[in-house]
Amino acid sequence: MSSVYPPRPALSLELLSTPCLVLEREKLARNLARMAATVAARGVHLRPHLKTAKCAEIAHLAAPDRAPITVSTLREAEYFAHHGWTDIFYAVGFGPGKLARAAGLLRAGVRLVTMVDHPDTAAALAEFAQREKLTFRTVIEIDSGDHRGGVTPSSALLLTIARALGRHFAGVATHGGQSYAARSPQEIAAVAQTEVECVRIAATRLHMDGFPSEIVSVGSSPTALAAGLDLTGVTEVRAGVYMFWDLFQAGLGVCTVDDIAVTVLAEVIGRPADRPNEFLIDAGSFALSKDTATAALPPEKNAGYGWLCDLDGRHLPGLRVARTWQEHGLVVSDAPLPAGSFPIGSRVRVLPNHACPTAAAHDRYFVTTGDRGIVAEWPRVNGW
Amino acid sequence: MSSVYPPRPALSLELLSTPCLVLEREKLARNLARMAATVAARGVHLRPHLKTAKCAEIAHLAAPDRAPITVSTLREAEYFAHHGWTDIFYAVGFGPGKLARAAGLLRAGVRLVTMVDHPDTAAALAEFAQREKLTFRTVIEIDSGDHRGGVTPSSALLLTIARALGRHFAGVATHGGQSYAARSPQEIAAVAQTEVECVRIAATRLHMDGFPSEIVSVGSSPTALAAGLDLTGVTEVRAGVYMFWDLFQAGLGVCTVDDIAVTVLAEVIGRPADRPNEFLIDAGSFALSKDTATAALPPEKNAGYGWLCDLDGRHLPGLRVARTWQEHGLVVSDAPLPAGSFPIGSRVRVLPNHACPTAAAHDRYFVTTGDRGIVAEWPRVNGW
Repeated sequence: MSSVYPPRPALSLELLSTPCLVLEREKLARNLARMAATVAARGVHLRPHLKTAKCAEIAHLAAPDRAPITVSTLREAEYFAHHGWTDIFYAVGFGPGKLARAAGLLRAGVRLVTMVDHPDTAAALAEFAQREKLTFRTVIEIDSGDHRGGVTPSSALLLTIARALGRHFAGVATHGGQSYAARSPQEIAAVAQTEVECVRIAATRLHMDGFPSEIVSVGSSPTALAAGLDLTGVTEVRAGVYMFWDLFQAGLGVCTVDDIAVTVLAEVIGRPADRPNEFLIDAGSFALSKDTATAALPPEKNAGYGWLCDLDGRHLPGLRVARTWQEHGLVVSDAPLPAGSFPIGSRVRVLPNHACPTAAAHDRYFVTTGDRGIVAEWPRVNGW
Repeated sequence: MSSVYPPRPALSLELLSTPCLVLEREKLARNLARMAATVAARGVHLRPHLKTAKCAEIAHLAAPDRAPITVSTLREAEYFAHHGWTDIFYAVGFGPGKLARAAGLLRAGVRLVTMVDHPDTAAALAEFAQREKLTFRTVIEIDSGDHRGGVTPSSALLLTIARALGRHFAGVATHGGQSYAARSPQEIAAVAQTEVECVRIAATRLHMDGFPSEIVSVGSSPTALAAGLDLTGVTEVRAGVYMFWDLFQAGLGVCTVDDIAVTVLAEVIGRPADRPNEFLIDAGSFALSKDTATAALPPEKNAGYGWLCDLDGRHLPGLRVARTWQEHGLVVSDAPLPAGSFPIGSRVRVLPNHACPTAAAHDRYFVTTGDRGIVAEWPRVNGW
């Protein structure tokens, strides 16, 4: 040994254990700046959705100065509260089984926003709040066409729910998830305008009935960036996947492949002798996820389980993960692979079909700034 | 408060935070006993694959007295080594990038089995071992028809790889993954016999060339239980999903729905007013996984993203999770739902399509013994 205290070797993409999740900080920053500028120019607040990133270090960049955020689980709410955020919208239909944990957050000073779409939930929440001497801040979920949860803006239930909520009523929210089925900027813009119109109608009806809305919330990453959007009456826009983007969003035309900030680093572990245009990597359905969202796009945009990049993040057209097993991915090349390319032990990076489930398989980000060095490890808060 | 030290309320399926993973210990024990008895009766060793369970408490039941085990990641290998297992087969094609971590295991006294299928990997391993003064215990992967990794039993590469391995050679292994595409007991039995024949041919060729096999390893859960299997020449059988089973395996006829030992506990969070035969639960694609393996089975076995059980684990025919979003699952009933059924806040359990990815979304098991009480929490080792 040359020294009693040998310097720790600098961590790099060549040395990381594979598979793992790599985050390019400059692409993240560019994606955040684009969304922040677009939403700010429309005169409303951006309430970043941390369901994709699930990471305090990223929240500091996406929602600086502990600005309001959105989460998809109570574990995320508790984690971000622990890290100092106080205005947190839990944007999944609330269930009575979550009242006790929500109460813990309220008592800790968190201005939690809950969302309901059923009179029974509203009644359970109001009764619990009465007993526990708490005030909830609850929005009514509006179905603007995704048919996941929510009541339609014209539904009689809207006012029934507001009355059941009483002093716990805080506004309305919708998510135009059908934007993911849109196939042109015009279709996305139409969904975006429908989101806005639905919450506007709902908020107006509620206001006329004595329930003014503090929060009028819309959003999905595609609709948040839609051109020519009139957000009159809306107070905030929620979006999440824009932080990283992915091949599905690139396929929708909402971002470019070069904007995608996360990739899965993998090692070439197999070169089948009789299949020269294929190789195996150590990233399978667990490291990449089973998501095949791009299969719903035109064939030239179907990425299988992900498109390939070289170690420096340059997209390698014609190479995709065509099949997965738990810990194996089979890469297939459209064109014959040059002899000697992708030898055993070489490394590649896989662009995700859908960043949310891919990231969810990993417990941390290895952060780069465009070269092969790792400048930070940022943990994620998975689970519930 | 009635007491200075109030008793902690007993944890139960009614009180757990949802979604979460529930494991029925008696079903697990029954599944383990069936596989152990079947393999023992054939005179070979069972080397349980912990890729599904990823849990030391379960390994104590599946591989008691620290019997040999199989793993799918080096993190699993390190975790089980920490818990005292020493004979650990890392049954994924080995990559040179994993040599340093494997060396750490060897130096800690673990009798790690590695698997290679390429002369370059064998050469890299032998060179590293020479430099680091280590002895690996390496099997050659045989392709018995799954076309994932491996060399065919008749390939000239077989002997090339064995010679490159030299003293690190330990035997042959295969995985008849094509059994998952079989649709009858006869087809599964044929795959099982092919697995055995392929390793037998490979081991014989290697033996004639001066490389006797210490390990001749076959297995998948369906083939391990195939009727009338002649395992002459085989030393061990590997299997993993048999510990829990799932709807895909039940669809293959390898187990019954009642054998499935894991379910996802979920709360009813939505009852759309205009869709009386549907409801929303708080288990979506993250808690259930995106796996739709049963879609490849006959339509009556297509479980969507999972079939439903009541809180006591009784299967509710005709109810399935038909659509998922990140944190929402849409349950659709084939028959009209009785008025008042599945109210907001009620709880259900979802049988997994594919136990491996569903379990991988969760950090622990909540263990029951058939009633609603939770008798233990068992952690899982996810990731890499």
